Amino acid sequence: MEEEKLIKLLNSFKKDEITIDNALDKLKSLPFEDLGFVKIDNHRSLRTGFPEVIYGEGKTKEQVKIIVKSMIKENNTILITRCKKEHYDEVKKIVPNCAYNKIANTIVINEKEIINTDIKVVIATGGTSDLPVAEEAYVTARAFGCNVIKLIDVGVAGIHRLLDNKELLFDANVVIAIAGMEGALPSVIGGIVSCPVIAVPTSVGYGANFQGLTPLLAMLNSCASGIAVVNIDNGFGGGFMASTIVKQIEKGRK
Amino acid sequence: MEEEKLIKLLNSFKKDEITIDNALDKLKSLPFEDLGFVKIDNHRSLRTGFPEVIYGEGKTKEQVKIIVKSMIKENNTILITRCKKEHYDEVKKIVPNCAYNKIANTIVINEKEIINTDIKVVIATGGTSDLPVAEEAYVTARAFGCNVIKLIDVGVAGIHRLLDNKELLFDANVVIAIAGMEGALPSVIGGIVSCPVIAVPTSVGYGANFQGLTPLLAMLNSCASGIAVVNIDNGFGGGFMASTIVKQIEKGRK
Amino acid sequence: MEEEKLIKLLNSFKKDEITIDNALDKLKSLPFEDLGFVKIDNHRSLRTGFPEVIYGEGKTKEQVKIIVKSMIKENNTILITRCKKEHYDEVKKIVPNCAYNKIANTIVINEKEIINTDIKVVIATGGTSDLPVAEEAYVTARAFGCNVIKLIDVGVAGIHRLLDNKELLFDANVVIAIAGMEGALPSVIGGIVSCPVIAVPTSVGYGANFQGLTPLLAMLNSCASGIAVVNIDNGFGGGFMASTIVKQIEKGRK
Amino acid sequence: MEEEKLIKLLNSFKKDEITIDNALDKLKSLPFEDLGFVKIDNHRSLRTGFPEVIYGEGKTKEQVKIIVKSMIKENNTILITRCKKEHYDEVKKIVPNCAYNKIANTIVINEKEIINTDIKVVIATGGTSDLPVAEEAYVTARAFGCNVIKLIDVGVAGIHRLLDNKELLFDANVVIAIAGMEGALPSVIGGIVSCPVIAVPTSVGYGANFQGLTPLLAMLNSCASGIAVVNIDNGFGGGFMASTIVKQIEKGRK
Amino acid sequence: MEEEKLIKLLNSFKKDEITIDNALDKLKSLPFEDLGFVKIDNHRSLRTGFPEVIYGEGKTKEQVKIIVKSMIKENNTILITRCKKEHYDEVKKIVPNCAYNKIANTIVINEKEIINTDIKVVIATGGTSDLPVAEEAYVTARAFGCNVIKLIDVGVAGIHRLLDNKELLFDANVVIAIAGMEGALPSVIGGIVSCPVIAVPTSVGYGANFQGLTPLLAMLNSCASGIAVVNIDNGFGGGFMASTIVKQIEKGRK
Amino acid sequence: MEEEKLIKLLNSFKKDEITIDNALDKLKSLPFEDLGFVKIDNHRSLRTGFPEVIYGEGKTKEQVKIIVKSMIKENNTILITRCKKEHYDEVKKIVPNCAYNKIANTIVINEKEIINTDIKVVIATGGTSDLPVAEEAYVTARAFGCNVIKLIDVGVAGIHRLLDNKELLFDANVVIAIAGMEGALPSVIGGIVSCPVIAVPTSVGYGANFQGLTPLLAMLNSCASGIAVVNIDNGFGGGFMASTIVKQIEKGRK
Amino acid sequence: MEEEKLIKLLNSFKKDEITIDNALDKLKSLPFEDLGFVKIDNHRSLRTGFPEVIYGEGKTKEQVKIIVKSMIKENNTILITRCKKEHYDEVKKIVPNCAYNKIANTIVINEKEIINTDIKVVIATGGTSDLPVAEEAYVTARAFGCNVIKLIDVGVAGIHRLLDNKELLFDANVVIAIAGMEGALPSVIGGIVSCPVIAVPTSVGYGANFQGLTPLLAMLNSCASGIAVVNIDNGFGGGFMASTIVKQIEKGRK
Amino acid sequence: MEEEKLIKLLNSFKKDEITIDNALDKLKSLPFEDLGFVKIDNHRSLRTGFPEVIYGEGKTKEQVKIIVKSMIKENNTILITRCKKEHYDEVKKIVPNCAYNKIANTIVINEKEIINTDIKVVIATGGTSDLPVAEEAYVTARAFGCNVIKLIDVGVAGIHRLLDNKELLFDANVVIAIAGMEGALPSVIGGIVSCPVIAVPTSVGYGANFQGLTPLLAMLNSCASGIAVVNIDNGFGGGFMASTIVKQIEKGRK
Repeated sequence: MEEEKLIKLLNSFKKDEITIDNALDKLKSLPFEDLGFVKIDNHRSLRTGFPEVIYGEGKTKEQVKIIVKSMIKENNTILITRCKKEHYDEVKKIVPNCAYNKIANTIVINEKEIINTDIKVVIATGGTSDLPVAEEAYVTARAFGCNVIKLIDVGVAGIHRLLDNKELLFDANVVIAIAGMEGALPSVIGGIVSCPVIAVPTSVGYGANFQGLTPLLAMLNSCASGIAVVNIDNGFGGGFMASTIVKQIEKGRK
Repeated sequence: MEEEKLIKLLNSFKKDEITIDNALDKLKSLPFEDLGFVKIDNHRSLRTGFPEVIYGEGKTKEQVKIIVKSMIKENNTILITRCKKEHYDEVKKIVPNCAYNKIANTIVINEKEIINTDIKVVIATGGTSDLPVAEEAYVTARAFGCNVIKLIDVGVAGIHRLLDNKELLFDANVVIAIAGMEGALPSVIGGIVSCPVIAVPTSVGYGANFQGLTPLLAMLNSCASGIAVVNIDNGFGGGFMASTIVKQIEKGRK
Repeated sequence: MEEEKLIKLLNSFKKDEITIDNALDKLKSLPFEDLGFVKIDNHRSLRTGFPEVIYGEGKTKEQVKIIVKSMIKENNTILITRCKKEHYDEVKKIVPNCAYNKIANTIVINEKEIINTDIKVVIATGGTSDLPVAEEAYVTARAFGCNVIKLIDVGVAGIHRLLDNKELLFDANVVIAIAGMEGALPSVIGGIVSCPVIAVPTSVGYGANFQGLTPLLAMLNSCASGIAVVNIDNGFGGGFMASTIVKQIEKGRK
Repeated sequence: MEEEKLIKLLNSFKKDEITIDNALDKLKSLPFEDLGFVKIDNHRSLRTGFPEVIYGEGKTKEQVKIIVKSMIKENNTILITRCKKEHYDEVKKIVPNCAYNKIANTIVINEKEIINTDIKVVIATGGTSDLPVAEEAYVTARAFGCNVIKLIDVGVAGIHRLLDNKELLFDANVVIAIAGMEGALPSVIGGIVSCPVIAVPTSVGYGANFQGLTPLLAMLNSCASGIAVVNIDNGFGGGFMASTIVKQIEKGRK
Repeated sequence: MEEEKLIKLLNSFKKDEITIDNALDKLKSLPFEDLGFVKIDNHRSLRTGFPEVIYGEGKTKEQVKIIVKSMIKENNTILITRCKKEHYDEVKKIVPNCAYNKIANTIVINEKEIINTDIKVVIATGGTSDLPVAEEAYVTARAFGCNVIKLIDVGVAGIHRLLDNKELLFDANVVIAIAGMEGALPSVIGGIVSCPVIAVPTSVGYGANFQGLTPLLAMLNSCASGIAVVNIDNGFGGGFMASTIVKQIEKGRK
Repeated sequence: MEEEKLIKLLNSFKKDEITIDNALDKLKSLPFEDLGFVKIDNHRSLRTGFPEVIYGEGKTKEQVKIIVKSMIKENNTILITRCKKEHYDEVKKIVPNCAYNKIANTIVINEKEIINTDIKVVIATGGTSDLPVAEEAYVTARAFGCNVIKLIDVGVAGIHRLLDNKELLFDANVVIAIAGMEGALPSVIGGIVSCPVIAVPTSVGYGANFQGLTPLLAMLNSCASGIAVVNIDNGFGGGFMASTIVKQIEKGRK
Repeated sequence: MEEEKLIKLLNSFKKDEITIDNALDKLKSLPFEDLGFVKIDNHRSLRTGFPEVIYGEGKTKEQVKIIVKSMIKENNTILITRCKKEHYDEVKKIVPNCAYNKIANTIVINEKEIINTDIKVVIATGGTSDLPVAEEAYVTARAFGCNVIKLIDVGVAGIHRLLDNKELLFDANVVIAIAGMEGALPSVIGGIVSCPVIAVPTSVGYGANFQGLTPLLAMLNSCASGIAVVNIDNGFGGGFMASTIVKQIEKGRK
Repeated sequence: MEEEKLIKLLNSFKKDEITIDNALDKLKSLPFEDLGFVKIDNHRSLRTGFPEVIYGEGKTKEQVKIIVKSMIKENNTILITRCKKEHYDEVKKIVPNCAYNKIANTIVINEKEIINTDIKVVIATGGTSDLPVAEEAYVTARAFGCNVIKLIDVGVAGIHRLLDNKELLFDANVVIAIAGMEGALPSVIGGIVSCPVIAVPTSVGYGANFQGLTPLLAMLNSCASGIAVVNIDNGFGGGFMASTIVKQIEKGRK
């Protein structure tokens, strides 16, 4: 690729085919990627082991298939979020053993192995209605090679359900706390654990919930520390953020 | 008062001093209060035993003194909220033994006796910064004759502080749950107790707290049941609402 | 259940099968419910006589049936809110005499008897469009054993309609005031009665009503005292809150 | 003024000094005011008899004095709103008998006589804190020659205070209803009277009142008809709107 | 009706059948309408000549028919707003000559004659998309007996379209200015005319228009005076408000 | 600067002091600015002739002086916005002939000459209160070498004031339309002119103006085309945007 | 048209058929357009070469056809935005060679030639989902005769994609930067180029994006200068604004 | 402490001093802390090595001194945020060598040693005005023992300033990205790095910035992945969140 161009340019200068001024001018006008910037970018993808991600919403099944085709290489992981059964039907024509999760609305191709089973991501939800968001977070973190444990329906209205699982929470390296309604779950968890808590507000609720704005604001204002928030219903964002932390822990071990 | 007018009118008709049409016309044109409406209103005040309340904010010390003077009768209770030291200095000139609470910013004249000590109002706050609101609620409910217990700084970030007091909460007839930040306290309390919970959001917080809007919305969206909400920082409203419930319990006993 | 575990543990210690340290360790690591916390929770349900509640929205008819099946015990009351005819058709297969209210969108199984007919809950609405919310409040409070009287279409634009019913309002122990549009009803009622008023804003209105935000804000800012507010369209919340107050009055009598 | 120009142009054309094309071009390029548009504008001011108005806020005392000087003609009325004592001190140097209202923060020069005392504007306020806005409305409507009656502190929390004055309300040609808090007053008045009601929300309130946004929204959503709303705290706007209606009634008589 | 009750009571007292105390008690407990309050209310309807209004939205065709049936008396005017063709089909079965306006979505029964053709209501709209709101305002004011002139599509983006009609605007007694988008029309009209201007914001627009919130706020903040605002898309409110002003002008003539 | 590094590197390769791989590696790891990126950036500043800008708000007088010192080169233009008299006193110690504008709160050092007087920027404001924003826009555009004409107080409430200046507007190459209140000015101007209109909302207004949010929304929703909006009170932004357009016109001529 | 009227009037005066006073009166009462105002307006359209624009949304296919018919003259350009296939089917019956763009939802009749190919408008979008808005901007600017280059999917999450095209950006005379999500694209572009940047926020996003409100606010608050913003999803507005700038550059050359 | 109670209870049972039922009852009624819950809580603090934190805002200097006194043990770290010089003057009386940071408004007592210098936290800010928030984040993370590198004023308006530091960013384990205005910095950084990015919006900005709401929303909607957000101006929150991640990396190594 771009290396040839550079080699050619350097050799031309060496052979006095071009002057020093010519060489300088050409070097300056080369786009960044010519100098490896994009390569670094590619390296990042290879090095970190993050799978490719396709955001399915608003894309036709044909578009998704074309993107998958261009992306697929030997055994690399691909995650498609916010997709539907019709996308799955199309994708499995070219990747028969891809996995469709109809609650999370995701397709996963070549899910990664869990490398370090002792690094644990716990996903806790306030209610059963938060399940689709929790599943999206689960599939994402799992596709990225994380060891994920789910703790569904442990909302604060029945605080003992959460406290009964305190050992599990104490053991986590990252907690993804997902809740709608008043969004109090991350605060209570944040008061119990010492690991980072990623809060995901959901649009579950009615009346003055305003499609998740209420739990979003509540989570940002948490009286507990060690909590950071992603967008409403953004299970993928929560799962991805957790994965970046897990990667740092893995990296730290090496 | 107005009864004389009515008696006079009825007797005039009986003595044929006025015709039936005259009597009808006069009855119809009498203002409502002439027919006991205001009396009922007064009765309500006497019967329910609610003290008179003066909202001090925006009133000069002279204005407050004039209102107190016109209100004061033998041993009746008067509560002045949102007032300052300067109001107190003026009021104590005419009611020397009135009580000023500088945290709650209230003056109480002739506080009521607690009639039923077994009817308990518990005031719980998320943090120490919620204290001014809690004190306003305390003074109000106490001035109305309620037996009030305070539970300060039991916010959800350290859930054990709250759980340590669960007996006290189980024993309450009404709980006033006061919190700023993310406003999760009423939800957790509402999940534990079976008595009515009055939630008071406070403007304690910063950033995206929006002067108490965040805990207000959170409390309205509580996933626990048996919770109703008053205005931001409205300690008086919380204390008054609790008092109306206590009065119903007392009334129910008679 | 858990008691056996505890008895076994205590007896093991007594018989010197385990040391004092072992006993301590095991006691500490027992989940809370093992120590009666959940039992207390169950006690609460039994003691207070609150029925079980299922929030129907977003649940399939199969899910609702499974939950009902697992909940149903001899003669206990179950309330299902925000459900549809299709849920009813499924539920009545297993509980033939359950009652479906198509305006309130509720199913009630084994409605409670009214114990104290002299404790009165009055539900007042601003208009006829508030009826679905009023019915949800009615069914809820009624299912919980309250004596409920409805007062429909007494909004403030024709103040005499409300004033004509003042005796009924004076007689109430709790008033649930339901209104959309500008939400002024609770203020006017709050100025007349001395009992607690639970305000329920509805999403009835258009233009700058913002799906009930306007009456919600208006109710929170009421110039009358003794008013607390639940979420928009939350008839269940209003009915439940009223029930907790009625339970306290009943409890106070014993 | 501009007429001469036109006459000159027409005569030039008549005398063949300019061609038809020249005449057309010149006519087209004359500014609008040359054609009497501004004159009509001045006529409007004279014909309608509206006083000149100066918005004092943000203007220095010198600026206000200069404007007054340039405006003052024989006996014309001038209204200065949102001004302070220091403006008054300066203005009275040049107009010694001007009237300063320290509650309304207004100065009036040459107040108009009330022409038709049987056309009545009633100003009703919810509380005493709404007084500054009410006074601004009063001074404005009065300065414009309206017959204005004030009805202070008749808010809906004590509905009988308002109903006691129903005769006065029935008699009004326009009502200006001023309220903060939940802003319910215009709705109740609108349900009683048949004349136009101008609603003025005030920033009186706290917590979720949002500087008058709550009563503003409530008034816009009134369930009563015949109500229109002006800006928050805009007493001048309410008084001016009432005056335009009174002028139409007066005009209709001629 | 209620008069008989009163006469009976007064006569009973006269004949000594009841004591003075009995008489007083009974008088006090009579509902307000017994004392003519509701009659005054009815008088108001008769006196002012306002037609009966039914808000059709959310009502079934059967409900509308029943209400019409109970309302209809000889030649009285009835206005049904926000209704559909199906309502019309049902209503015309009982009132064959009722008039359906499919743009305004209104039905009118027995439209009033225009009494004073020289009292003029002008309805101006910013664009053609504001037409449904304008028609609702037109039908309302017209049904109430007003003489109404429409001026469609005279928005400020082409200011000459408005200025071309300035004579018509100068001649108006009331202007209803209807606009979406940025809602500037009432400001420009308010700067030209001296009669009252009723501003009606519409939800016409997109992006940051927020369903009419933008023109609503703009109209409330108008730099011109003599403007008051009704709710978004509330053509009926605008037409009704205009009618109350016209009634006052008519009344003033008598 | 960086050129030497490059020359050295190229020559080292030519002399075989480093291998082709070494050369490639070094080229790739050079920071971007080494390759002229920053130089291009500097070129941009020189080429476009934009002055340096310092945002004064929140900076101490010492900080401003230090920045000016480091920036000042022979005859280059520097603009300091949102500064105070105390900044000026400090700056003039090092640049005695700098110009302070106390309405705009700006300091200008070495104002540019106007190159093309036939390219005209017209600044129009709704009222006199918008003057500080207008002056900031004026000083900015003027400092950048634009020919700027001011048109103050031509708001839409008196539309003739604007129309009287239509020739001036027709003649403009760019119009900066500045308004608070309802922000209608850009719409009316946009309907008259065919050149680009930059709309600047100001925080002038009260009540539901919300510190300029109302005119901001109104301007974004303008029914006229050819309008784009900058931030509230952002006179600098308006002036800068106008300057970029003027530069393009100038550039187009060359 | 109106010229005849004027000529007739002037000649009547010349022939003494009317007096000077009659002539003056008639001239003053002529509507503005009679005096060339509308002609100026028409001139503007002819001079600037802006095509006629029809906003299709909410218009039936018949309505659009009628408007096109009345507008179409020899070879003039017409742009129809926010239309559907059904509009196209109808329009092509009368203008067979009109061009329909199904992504932009536009129809163009008689697209203009590009006059100055060296004046370049660059349209950059953050993602592929912004394409419909970008196409609307493209079609608009292109229909107005601009030379437009598209740069799709160069969002800030992969900054090198944008930097790779910096030459193209440096070369632009106007940039239209279109982005949803967090709307950061215009800031980054504004930091690179020196030409005017028109920012178009799109409603692409979810959760707390609020239908484009987030990128709208972000763009208004850009830390880069030389950026002005149009309404959400307003591709037409962006394209039109760019065209007005291009016209000024073209005009400047003459 | 509580262990004795338990031992006593168990032994009492062993010695048959109490029955099995008594033992069960007592065990059930023991507060949670009796079972080590609070101890675990204390353990957490010791184990994780998090310093004690005092939120200084709203606390008097006396209150802060009392809290410090009760907290201080041998060599433990204490962090006081949002405090003033007067707090520092008081605190240093009892802890002479505490460190006050007047930009961050923090006091640190016994700052921790950096254990792992190869785990790097990078703090990047958009502008110099974000410095107070950045310093608070710095002091927090540093007090918790993290190795922190600052990168000030690398905002997106001059993208090369950021790109020049890409090596430093590639090397980070956590990035704290702090920005006001449009809040685009985290998006650009998130597109470059693969480690977790904690976004901190600041209230730096004006106009439609709304005290940091704009960058808050922008950051939540970032098109880049691996970003989570804390509250506006919450430097402490950002620093704390980073520390929890660093602790997990450190823990993972053991």
